[in-house]
Amino acid sequence: METGRLYGLGLGPGDPELMTLKALRLLRAVPVVAYPAPKGGASFARGIVAAWLRPEQREIAIDFPMRPGPPPAEIYDSAAARIAAELDRGHDVAFLCQGDPFFYGSFAAIFTRLAPRYPAGVVPGVSSLVACAAAAAIPLVQRDESVTVIPATLTEDELARRLAQCEAAAIIKLGRHAGKVRQVLARLGLLDRAIYVERASQPGERVARFAEVDPIAVPYFAMALVPGNRG
Amino acid sequence: METGRLYGLGLGPGDPELMTLKALRLLRAVPVVAYPAPKGGASFARGIVAAWLRPEQREIAIDFPMRPGPPPAEIYDSAAARIAAELDRGHDVAFLCQGDPFFYGSFAAIFTRLAPRYPAGVVPGVSSLVACAAAAAIPLVQRDESVTVIPATLTEDELARRLAQCEAAAIIKLGRHAGKVRQVLARLGLLDRAIYVERASQPGERVARFAEVDPIAVPYFAMALVPGNRG
Repeated sequence: METGRLYGLGLGPGDPELMTLKALRLLRAVPVVAYPAPKGGASFARGIVAAWLRPEQREIAIDFPMRPGPPPAEIYDSAAARIAAELDRGHDVAFLCQGDPFFYGSFAAIFTRLAPRYPAGVVPGVSSLVACAAAAAIPLVQRDESVTVIPATLTEDELARRLAQCEAAAIIKLGRHAGKVRQVLARLGLLDRAIYVERASQPGERVARFAEVDPIAVPYFAMALVPGNRG
Repeated sequence: METGRLYGLGLGPGDPELMTLKALRLLRAVPVVAYPAPKGGASFARGIVAAWLRPEQREIAIDFPMRPGPPPAEIYDSAAARIAAELDRGHDVAFLCQGDPFFYGSFAAIFTRLAPRYPAGVVPGVSSLVACAAAAAIPLVQRDESVTVIPATLTEDELARRLAQCEAAAIIKLGRHAGKVRQVLARLGLLDRAIYVERASQPGERVARFAEVDPIAVPYFAMALVPGNRG
């Protein structure tokens, strides 16, 4: 029997209307959807597409722990095995990914495990990076500028080192690292240029000068943008 | 009379199915569409949405010169004036953007001129960056990695300086700069890691090891990906 096909579906930043036509078509066509879901909590990715799911579609909710750092390999192994069981039965599986599947996010670990054994592909999506620039109404990069995306989870010194080298920058995954990021931006003289974007395209979207944001109240899905043209 | 609203519509990398639902809705709703079009040639952005345009929609084709370097300011001034004339008459205008409107591209120059005077916004789109990673089936960045996007138009030394500092990287706008980029990648010991992606999501899409590509035959819409995990 032919195996099923694995799709990583990029769903965009949160507004269901920012899904692509292709992601919607495949979402409707597959018999099985899989998604990350915190234990006992709602899945953000599933929430984006909830209105389009059909009762007859089987759902595989994967509990990736929300604590800092990557989940242990066994969690990915076990999730991959649950998905493989459906693929073995000839069922296509769509793995739901907020933003883009290969731009951070947990799908890469599933893809790496299953792509050698099953037909697998990715539908690219609107990344948080461009969604935040759109929310802030700021051209992120133009012409010959470079832009660097930096996770806020790095140490203060490493953040400072990388930020000092780049032109335009986006610092992602702020959450409990916002205070540290604020210090680094201030140290480099960038605090007044930095824009804060929270929940781009979602209800509760917020855009502010980073300097005006209370670091205590910053969620994980928030980003600091430092636009180009620093001169 | 109320003025019209300006939309920068991100149309994604080329496959019409990689448009968002929102871009399609607005495209269908506006009375006027504007787009870059080389003199006497076909507009790539218009081509993406050609099947959805209606005969009664007015079209503003803007001739941005294709020669290297930014077009002179007068060309943007004149394009902005043509769009402003429609906005003044209360007509909404959608400016068609390949990829994402604020991720390189010519819309920023139009936005900068018109946003102070008219209601203006952007619909983010699937960027070439994530489209190329999807085409190559390569997770671009994961976990605590940084990724830097670098235009190939920079000098060889400047390219080398920026590439040496980053983890994952994407070198965009290859075209006639592909030979120079090849030399830089070789100099930094990255040539064997680099992946070449041409026309992601379009007919004629091509993925290859960069080392195997003839630099003479590389189009502008091509990119080199240097994935993370360099160690």
